[in-house]
Amino acid sequence: MRPMDLFLLTLDLAGTFVFALSGAAAAVKRELDIFGVLVLAIVAATTGGILRDLLIGAVPPIALTDWHYLVVSLAAGLLAFYWHPLIDRLRSPVQLFDAAGLALFAVTGTQKALLYGLDAPMAALLGMLTGIGGGIARDVLLTEIPTVLRAELYAIAALAGGAAVVVGESFGLPPGVTTIAGAALCLVIRLGSLYLGWHLPKARPPAS
Amino acid sequence: MRPMDLFLLTLDLAGTFVFALSGAAAAVKRELDIFGVLVLAIVAATTGGILRDLLIGAVPPIALTDWHYLVVSLAAGLLAFYWHPLIDRLRSPVQLFDAAGLALFAVTGTQKALLYGLDAPMAALLGMLTGIGGGIARDVLLTEIPTVLRAELYAIAALAGGAAVVVGESFGLPPGVTTIAGAALCLVIRLGSLYLGWHLPKARPPAS
Amino acid sequence: MRPMDLFLLTLDLAGTFVFALSGAAAAVKRELDIFGVLVLAIVAATTGGILRDLLIGAVPPIALTDWHYLVVSLAAGLLAFYWHPLIDRLRSPVQLFDAAGLALFAVTGTQKALLYGLDAPMAALLGMLTGIGGGIARDVLLTEIPTVLRAELYAIAALAGGAAVVVGESFGLPPGVTTIAGAALCLVIRLGSLYLGWHLPKARPPAS
Repeated sequence: MRPMDLFLLTLDLAGTFVFALSGAAAAVKRELDIFGVLVLAIVAATTGGILRDLLIGAVPPIALTDWHYLVVSLAAGLLAFYWHPLIDRLRSPVQLFDAAGLALFAVTGTQKALLYGLDAPMAALLGMLTGIGGGIARDVLLTEIPTVLRAELYAIAALAGGAAVVVGESFGLPPGVTTIAGAALCLVIRLGSLYLGWHLPKARPPAS
Repeated sequence: MRPMDLFLLTLDLAGTFVFALSGAAAAVKRELDIFGVLVLAIVAATTGGILRDLLIGAVPPIALTDWHYLVVSLAAGLLAFYWHPLIDRLRSPVQLFDAAGLALFAVTGTQKALLYGLDAPMAALLGMLTGIGGGIARDVLLTEIPTVLRAELYAIAALAGGAAVVVGESFGLPPGVTTIAGAALCLVIRLGSLYLGWHLPKARPPAS
Repeated sequence: MRPMDLFLLTLDLAGTFVFALSGAAAAVKRELDIFGVLVLAIVAATTGGILRDLLIGAVPPIALTDWHYLVVSLAAGLLAFYWHPLIDRLRSPVQLFDAAGLALFAVTGTQKALLYGLDAPMAALLGMLTGIGGGIARDVLLTEIPTVLRAELYAIAALAGGAAVVVGESFGLPPGVTTIAGAALCLVIRLGSLYLGWHLPKARPPAS
């Protein structure tokens, strides 16, 4: 395995871990039993990548053929189940990790879509879907309006990261550079939203 | 491009536009930000066709390879975001366009499924799914029971349109004729429900 | 058709029938019209198998190419619509049939995943997904937290059944034996939960 591949796999599994934590923590709040907690951990961590793989025709999805994703998701789920007070105290670091996971899934998702021959704008959209899909599935299963549709600059941060990758590739930059630039852009936007209050305009709904 | 193909593509994009409007308008009502509004526009306009393409094995789905669908969806989303009072006043025309979109997606979805070798009844069901899938995804993301499961003669109008196509094809009628006949049948049923109050029987739920 | 295949197909259609009943009964409770009831019957009966087939790359899914599944689902939906007081009285037998359906879908789903070359742990997970997918889709469409995430020992019974199949296969046991052993294990766990109160630990959610 080349250093770059190992670097990407490590980051991918780190993203899987924090997304699994987010799913498990949400399940604990809704008082699901341990099995429901583990299912939510797996769903939150893998749905984005599974949707991407289904849509580009990469079946079976990597999350079903590489057992690392399952083991990491289960470990995060068990951690959230048995030490959830700890995770509650760590909310701020978890948000940081979550932003990192979002950034990474967005850029690796975009690169995989380009590799399978999709056009640049669609590849960026699929990168975004890779980043936000797990959170959407988690919230739908718990019957909540998906956070990513309401949170400030969440999905758009992922889209910006994916867009940076496709723009960089179109100028012939090496994948390592576009990966880091795209992930950094996504991180900056997301953290700017979390800590500096950046946001998008909202429509005022009709008076009726 | 032959005149018939151009005719179908035009209608398909018109259907995409009105379904995107419906998703964006629903998102505006729930006070999502502009990004959530655009996501709902894309989801409502493309989910039906994406599900159909996944199920018949046509990957990547057309909505991911032909950029017209994305551009039309985004245009409708921006329109709904900035001029939603206008759309509110246009509710009745929008319902008309929506019925037209449903009719078109149902018949083109059925024809694509036939082309990929599915049996006639399954092709009609996939046509129906093409027509109703976007609305279901829109409502699930907003945590509402899908309208198409409750609205009078919505899904069944789509199914009738698809059924007309497969029956017509089995008699060897040309695709242009079955398309128009199927779409007309779907339209008549849907408009009959909207303006004349046609409906199906409901089960009385158990007293308990 | 060999006796074993006929045996499996019979059990598979029996599982389809009872899952369709569960979807239709839930739709009747929410006062959907007859079309919504039939859609819920089809969704509850076929979603698990369709997800499995999409994920292992078996497209079009068997539920779309073999019309038996559709006819059986529709029959169950009509039965639930017109005789739902009867089904209410039969709640206990229905739960028994439902447990049988879960057991069967879990083991046949696992075997199909193994056949398509997935690793043992993933095959067992896909078997579980086959068993629980329909119920999840049913509950999401009706905007409820999926029962299988909350019900005592439901999904884990399916997982145990799938695991028994892959363990048996790894020891070279014939498919007939692993099918029966896996289904029996799933049934015992599910019935133990229903009638003897077996359950898993729950996390206490944070006080906040």
